[in-house]
Formats: sequence, structure tokens, C-alpha cells
Amino acid sequence: MENKIGSYEFVVEPFHTDFSGHLMLSVLGNHFLNCAGFHASERGFGMGTINEANYTWVLSRLAVELTELPAQYEKFTVQTWVENVYRLFTDRNFAVTAQDGRQIGYARSIWAMIDMDTRKPADLLTLHDGNIVDYICDEPCPIDKPSRIKLGEGQLVDTLTMRYCDIDINGHVNSIRYIEHILDLFPIHIYKEKRIRRFEIAYVTESYFGDQLTFYREQSCDDEYHIEIRKQNNEVVCRSKVIFERI
Amino acid sequence: MENKIGSYEFVVEPFHTDFSGHLMLSVLGNHFLNCAGFHASERGFGMGTINEANYTWVLSRLAVELTELPAQYEKFTVQTWVENVYRLFTDRNFAVTAQDGRQIGYARSIWAMIDMDTRKPADLLTLHDGNIVDYICDEPCPIDKPSRIKLGEGQLVDTLTMRYCDIDINGHVNSIRYIEHILDLFPIHIYKEKRIRRFEIAYVTESYFGDQLTFYREQSCDDEYHIEIRKQNNEVVCRSKVIFERI
Repeated sequence: MENKIGSYEFVVEPFHTDFSGHLMLSVLGNHFLNCAGFHASERGFGMGTINEANYTWVLSRLAVELTELPAQYEKFTVQTWVENVYRLFTDRNFAVTAQDGRQIGYARSIWAMIDMDTRKPADLLTLHDGNIVDYICDEPCPIDKPSRIKLGEGQLVDTLTMRYCDIDINGHVNSIRYIEHILDLFPIHIYKEKRIRRFEIAYVTESYFGDQLTFYREQSCDDEYHIEIRKQNNEVVCRSKVIFERI
Repeated sequence: MENKIGSYEFVVEPFHTDFSGHLMLSVLGNHFLNCAGFHASERGFGMGTINEANYTWVLSRLAVELTELPAQYEKFTVQTWVENVYRLFTDRNFAVTAQDGRQIGYARSIWAMIDMDTRKPADLLTLHDGNIVDYICDEPCPIDKPSRIKLGEGQLVDTLTMRYCDIDINGHVNSIRYIEHILDLFPIHIYKEKRIRRFEIAYVTESYFGDQLTFYREQSCDDEYHIEIRKQNNEVVCRSKVIFERI
């Protein structure tokens, strides 16, 4: 059991907090992705291993629920484990523990592995002799699975051209930058009165340097927003759901 | 001597690289600021200590020179030390060492300490019994000091409104985000043909959430650009100099 769960300690750096002095959700997302990488590499199915074989992990969905975010200079721990492995996807979960031991959040993520040349998904059950299934673990993750996000009549709320700092080693806009751009859609008074209780993102298509992304937003109820990011040709790049609650 | 130099090890995280797979300069800048914080705190004149006394360190200038940047998953070490202490400013230097031991870069920074209520600078030579001077160290830092950056007829190249992810715990646009916004002024083909040999930034005035910043750029010679960031009222927020060299 212990070897199935990876556990990684972090400290909240000053430039990783928002105006309230708490860790930014986008930075926590980055920590999640790093932990996924550490956990997989340590067990022989990480990016390093996989890339050599011309495969890479691709994040498909992420859903995060938090009761609070750690404050500047506080330590916190991220645990991660594999919940399920299917032929084309794997479910990886995360738990966040504050320095005093309280559980302050959970996350669920869905990943595929693709061939970097053909961009086609790999069969996870046969890759590396299917040894990834040895790490399936039934640790509880008491938050809802990523939902299907639908936009009715979204309003165009932003247009951004993707630039140098948005682009990752694969030449795509990096998964974390989308989260930052989505958080930036909300005015600061919302963050003063409310906190994000649940954040979801579904990555649909890649975007690239120079792409002009349009951000559509719909308020589905008082504290819930649905967001769709589209490219020039109106193709959907990401969908996101942000649920606030009053502090 | 050893106690005068702080030494901190890092690894290049996947989402901290640019399209070329090398550490982004803005992230290296963040590491420098963290190292400054660690070094000062460990010696009793850090943010934590200082904030309690209602003082905070403010970065005034940063100049970085690099022969290369470490690649994804590579380890590197940042060393930092205090070169000089004056009444209102202190000079802090940095050295970057690759995992194979080669020196790959240096940086110089200038800091002031201010009273958070009055925003007035503190006298560094008397604060905390002037114990900061005990850490002055004559380790060499073989790069030029931050220069005076002047813009002749800069061209307006960008306009950005400061948002949630730009703002730090003090309610100001964070020092690292300015660097990202400056790096984002250049098209990707420049980064494909050239690398940044020297980067300088001088922080002049704070900017805040909702501020609309205008970016002026002047190409002073083939590979050298001067940048000025201004607020709505035309007040200068930052000046920067970026020197490229062909790869």
C-alpha cells in the first residue's frame, strides 16, 4: 500500500501566493502535475521512461476541491495514487494535507498516453507489460468525478494571444497557463468575498504560439461559472467549471 | 566564509521550461528571490523577521547574465551572498552552477528595506544592530553592475491590464510577472535563433490590480532592446534591457 501512494512535501513560496497570501490554485495544479511525474517515474512509467519510448502522458481532465489553501511559508503535503487504469485512460487522484495534518483538499485527474509521432493513444494495459495496473490503489477520494461541462450561451469575456511564456517543451500552451488565464477572468472583488471551492478543467485540443484564444463564460448559478476557450476557427481548446463559495 | 554564502539546489520542473526545454528566465528569477529570502532568513534579516517589525525587503534592480540555462529535469545550484551594504541599499549577488559543476550564470541585485506603513526606506546600517554587514562577502561576481536604462523613442508594443494572477501578497504586481510580460514581448522566432545573454530590470513604481500597463520598446542595436513599462498616467513602472546573442 505505502509504495502505491506517493507523498511529496512543499512549502508555499512568496511569489506563488495571491493577494490574500494563499497559494494560487494554478501553482497547486503545477505541484499536482509534478507529483504525478515523480510518482510515475519512481515506478517506471513516468515521462522520462515513456518519452524514450516515444510516448508521453497527456492530461485530459483535472478536478480540484478545496476547503482552504495553505498560506505563505506554510508546508503542505501532496499525496497521489492511481485509482483505475483503462485501455486508453488512467484515473489519478491527489490529496492535500496542511502542515497541521488536516486534509484540506482532493483532486481527480484523467490521463492518456500518446505516441508523440502519430499523436495516437497508447494501450495502457499492454504498455510496459501493463505494470501500471500493479499500482492501482483503493485509497478514498471523497470528491465528485470530473463532470461534463456544457456551455449554453456563453459571453465572450476575453481574447488572448498565446506567447513565449505560455508555451511548453512540446510547443503547446502549457496546461497550467490555461488555469492562470481562467483564474484571471474573474475580478478581484470575487476573490475578496469568495474562495474557489471546486475547479474543473477538461483539455480538448492543443493550442500553439500565436493562437488567438477567445474565452466564453456563462454563470450557471450564483456561484458557478462555466468557461469555454476556443481557437481562431472556433474549435474548443478547453472547458472549465469554477465554483465559488462565500468566505 | 561558508556561512556567508547560501547555496540552494533546484531541479528544472517540466512546466518551468520554455519550448526549447530550458528553464525560463522568469522562473530562475523567482528562484533568485527565494534564495535571497532563505539566505536572509537563515541569518536573521529575512522577510519573516523583518515583516514582524513592519519592514519588508523591496527588490530595486536585477541583472542576470547567462551562458546557458539548465534543461528539463537537470539539477542546478544557486549561490547567493551580500556584496555591499549601504545606508538605503544592499547589493546581493547570485551564481548559478550546472549539475556538472560548470558556472553558467551570475546575477546582481539591489534591495531596499521599507517600512510597510510609511513606505519609507529603513537605514540598513542600524537595523537589527546592523548585523547584516557581518555577512558582506568578497566572492567575485564577474558581470557588469545594473546599468542606467534609457529609452529614446520607444514604440508602444503592448498594453496589458493587471489581473488576479499578477498580484502578490502586498497587493502589487509581482516582480516575476513583470519579467514574464517582458519576455512575452518578443516573437518566438527570436528565441529560436537567439538566447538571452543578459537581462536587466529596474523596478521604479508599484502597479496594482486593474492597472493598464503600456509596454514601450526600443531596439538600441542589433541584439539589444530597451523596454519601459508605464501606467495609465504615463508614470514609469519598470525599465528593462534585454541583450540577445545568436545561438
